Amino acid sequence: MDLYGRDLITTQEWDKWELEEALDLAARMKRDRFSPEFTSVLEHKTFFMFFYNPSVRTRQSFECAATELGGHAQFLEPKAMRLKTATTAGETVEDAARVMSRYAAGLGIRILEDKVPYYGAGCELIREYAHWADIPVSSMADDRFHPFQGLADIMGWAEWYGGGPGRPDYRALEGKKMVLTWAQGALARSWCSVQEALLIASRFGMNVTVARPDGYDLDPEVIAWTRQNCEENGTTFEVTNDPLASMDGAHVVYARNWMSPNAYQDGEFKKQQEVERSLKISGWRLDAVKMGRTDNAIFTHPMPVDRSNEVTDEVASGPRSAIYDIAENRLHVQKAVMALTMGNI
Amino acid sequence: MDLYGRDLITTQEWDKWELEEALDLAARMKRDRFSPEFTSVLEHKTFFMFFYNPSVRTRQSFECAATELGGHAQFLEPKAMRLKTATTAGETVEDAARVMSRYAAGLGIRILEDKVPYYGAGCELIREYAHWADIPVSSMADDRFHPFQGLADIMGWAEWYGGGPGRPDYRALEGKKMVLTWAQGALARSWCSVQEALLIASRFGMNVTVARPDGYDLDPEVIAWTRQNCEENGTTFEVTNDPLASMDGAHVVYARNWMSPNAYQDGEFKKQQEVERSLKISGWRLDAVKMGRTDNAIFTHPMPVDRSNEVTDEVASGPRSAIYDIAENRLHVQKAVMALTMGNI
Amino acid sequence: MDLYGRDLITTQEWDKWELEEALDLAARMKRDRFSPEFTSVLEHKTFFMFFYNPSVRTRQSFECAATELGGHAQFLEPKAMRLKTATTAGETVEDAARVMSRYAAGLGIRILEDKVPYYGAGCELIREYAHWADIPVSSMADDRFHPFQGLADIMGWAEWYGGGPGRPDYRALEGKKMVLTWAQGALARSWCSVQEALLIASRFGMNVTVARPDGYDLDPEVIAWTRQNCEENGTTFEVTNDPLASMDGAHVVYARNWMSPNAYQDGEFKKQQEVERSLKISGWRLDAVKMGRTDNAIFTHPMPVDRSNEVTDEVASGPRSAIYDIAENRLHVQKAVMALTMGNI
Repeated sequence: MDLYGRDLITTQEWDKWELEEALDLAARMKRDRFSPEFTSVLEHKTFFMFFYNPSVRTRQSFECAATELGGHAQFLEPKAMRLKTATTAGETVEDAARVMSRYAAGLGIRILEDKVPYYGAGCELIREYAHWADIPVSSMADDRFHPFQGLADIMGWAEWYGGGPGRPDYRALEGKKMVLTWAQGALARSWCSVQEALLIASRFGMNVTVARPDGYDLDPEVIAWTRQNCEENGTTFEVTNDPLASMDGAHVVYARNWMSPNAYQDGEFKKQQEVERSLKISGWRLDAVKMGRTDNAIFTHPMPVDRSNEVTDEVASGPRSAIYDIAENRLHVQKAVMALTMGNI
Repeated sequence: MDLYGRDLITTQEWDKWELEEALDLAARMKRDRFSPEFTSVLEHKTFFMFFYNPSVRTRQSFECAATELGGHAQFLEPKAMRLKTATTAGETVEDAARVMSRYAAGLGIRILEDKVPYYGAGCELIREYAHWADIPVSSMADDRFHPFQGLADIMGWAEWYGGGPGRPDYRALEGKKMVLTWAQGALARSWCSVQEALLIASRFGMNVTVARPDGYDLDPEVIAWTRQNCEENGTTFEVTNDPLASMDGAHVVYARNWMSPNAYQDGEFKKQQEVERSLKISGWRLDAVKMGRTDNAIFTHPMPVDRSNEVTDEVASGPRSAIYDIAENRLHVQKAVMALTMGNI
Repeated sequence: MDLYGRDLITTQEWDKWELEEALDLAARMKRDRFSPEFTSVLEHKTFFMFFYNPSVRTRQSFECAATELGGHAQFLEPKAMRLKTATTAGETVEDAARVMSRYAAGLGIRILEDKVPYYGAGCELIREYAHWADIPVSSMADDRFHPFQGLADIMGWAEWYGGGPGRPDYRALEGKKMVLTWAQGALARSWCSVQEALLIASRFGMNVTVARPDGYDLDPEVIAWTRQNCEENGTTFEVTNDPLASMDGAHVVYARNWMSPNAYQDGEFKKQQEVERSLKISGWRLDAVKMGRTDNAIFTHPMPVDRSNEVTDEVASGPRSAIYDIAENRLHVQKAVMALTMGNI
């Protein structure tokens, strides 16, 4: 019962046994999705989904999750919230969070790069909500972290290297090699999913390689945590700018576009500039040739996939693509965390 | 149980007995709306409502339908979907549909003229979703078809010529005359509802007349199907440009504005041009004089009614107006189809 | 059972015993929030929430209320309703309301100053819906009234002067002094909450004082009703322009910005002009000095609080601030009224 009331901002802040408890419950929920054991966990309870940024998977999977647990997820957008900002009168986070705590069993927030003045400000806002709220607050993706994606990823990899859907074997991932590779694309994507993947892979005993063009380093603190996780597990951590050699012997290949550390200037997210910069770089599309250098690796991606930019159709729709299973897992890990932190399970 | 998993794009693609099965269940649901027999059919299950176009009746009735079956309808708009288009990066329909299939029990899509580059493109997109999705996909109105409106129409007519609300008699419609008449208006309305009405009326053995000004023909394929349905049933099918004589002996009068076949030019829906063209035509408002020529016909319309343009208040709010009963029937036929295609009934 | 089917536009139109019945049920619901006695009252039923204006508390609390009663609240915005206006074709209120009555158990509408051409037009629109609808219609805040806020206020005051949360004592409020004081601010706020507070305070036997700068009078009819309520209860009613002396001996202090009676010109709500006018006035922020003149009064506000403009943090977050309890009460009074007017309780 120890997880009741807990926030989830990043998996790095939960103990390993806590992550395992959530993942074990997620697997049970996947095997027996509509069992009466689970369908009244949030009966008549409300989960607030607060979307500064719109979303596909996150909206769908969280709203389904609440429904399958017997509760209801409210879809809230900030336009409907007269919140105080630097320049406009409105409600403080303290007041908003304290009232929300009177109504709901939990609160999830999504806020990405383009809604904040500097990298990390989104995550800070979530922490401010968590500070004032009496109910569990979780990140449904912010500019730094995406804990539910990380949980869905590791569950999916452990299913592919374990007993298949609903039968993950986390021990089977120990010592396996996960490569996170930057990919071409015109979307200047967030760091949140890829950073969470580094954290969770290294927590679960995988060897981790980051391959990216020079100038595309990620958050130094996340890199330091990943390195430390690997040290504690006796595994390797490597950063390279070689899109080919990085693939050698890989078991899990994660290919995804992301923005550079220079994306913010003068308190603004310069998306167009990032896109232009990105389009000048070639040789970073994931294809069958690169996959051929791996140890029959699975392909992983948090979706939506930017097909033909980030990855070829041959790989994305191929027999070793885990993307749909992992997308499905978003539902199961979210149900599990909601049940453990907000419910009576 | 044969309807489990079936898509519904137009009633024309369902067998007669399948339509009858859905309609019979709808009548039972209307008579005993909150019976425990029905309220757990979609328990804890999700229905995705994907609205490219906003809606009144459709949103309200589908969301109610899911609630009354014990489930939940998610209201999704494409702004929240980063979908790939001809000019922007994003997710493919394949990926969107395959992931949706992991979360939900069914998917409904609404997409009308103004969101697509040519007539029929909306219906094609729904078929692409249906191709990739493992769950039943239905049209909640597209540029060609509106199957749930057609079912609600025929059920309403059969109630008025049968035993009243919840007591439809479909045999009573055989040989009756249905007139679909173009009406004045400033809304350049879709073909979907009126085309579905032609198809369903002709399937159920009615004599069908279309009255419209020259230059307002409907989809040739739908007209051909209607003609063929009438031939198979030994009934008559007629097209005329006479707004008065067409009323003679009618039992059901359907008056509704619609766009001309020239509404698209250069890959664009020219709404303003259509409105201007339409406003030059007079003599096509439905009123008590025209209704006086019928065989005490009922007035039918899919709503929203453009009162005083399409029809006078005297007719729309008169004792032979079936519009509210038919609007209510949207709920019942949708519940029935959802139960049969997505549920455990 | 006499409240079944009743509309609620303002508390002034309900009998005292009706208000008490709703408040008593609200307190029982607060004490035993998820009791099976309450969680199936609206099972499988729909409540339409129709928002001309966005909202924080109202959206959250009504949607939670429906969920906790076992039903579902649909979030509808007028952009999705093709309603007829003075200048555009569309559906009449008659048609919209009559169809909604076929689908839902109740309808709530929110429409404020900036969406209507003159003061009172929002409330009139709600009354037009109520005229045509067969289901109970309630104001979720309009330009004149906010009945659920009034009920939440009086419940909160009676809890603070009674036995605490869930233990209101309405007799304890009799003869107590409630001061409604205008406050500085840059939001040109609606009259609805403060007017409802005057009405409910005077109904429940409180002495009422309104303190406002000259030129900030409220609706003459509401003032007349308040005066009449006080006369019937043998209590006092006073209007003053003294922000300090008005506090003497107060038990409940309600500080809130509001617009002037000149806010509408030429059929338009002149918000910017109102804000500018308001910013020229000083001496009307509620602070600890003013609270020091009261009889240890509680601070009340409908939220969102415009901190540092309307009131200092010291007061708003102080030990006599009732704002969060009252915000919570919105949920309970709404559940109670929904249960009594739409449910089977």
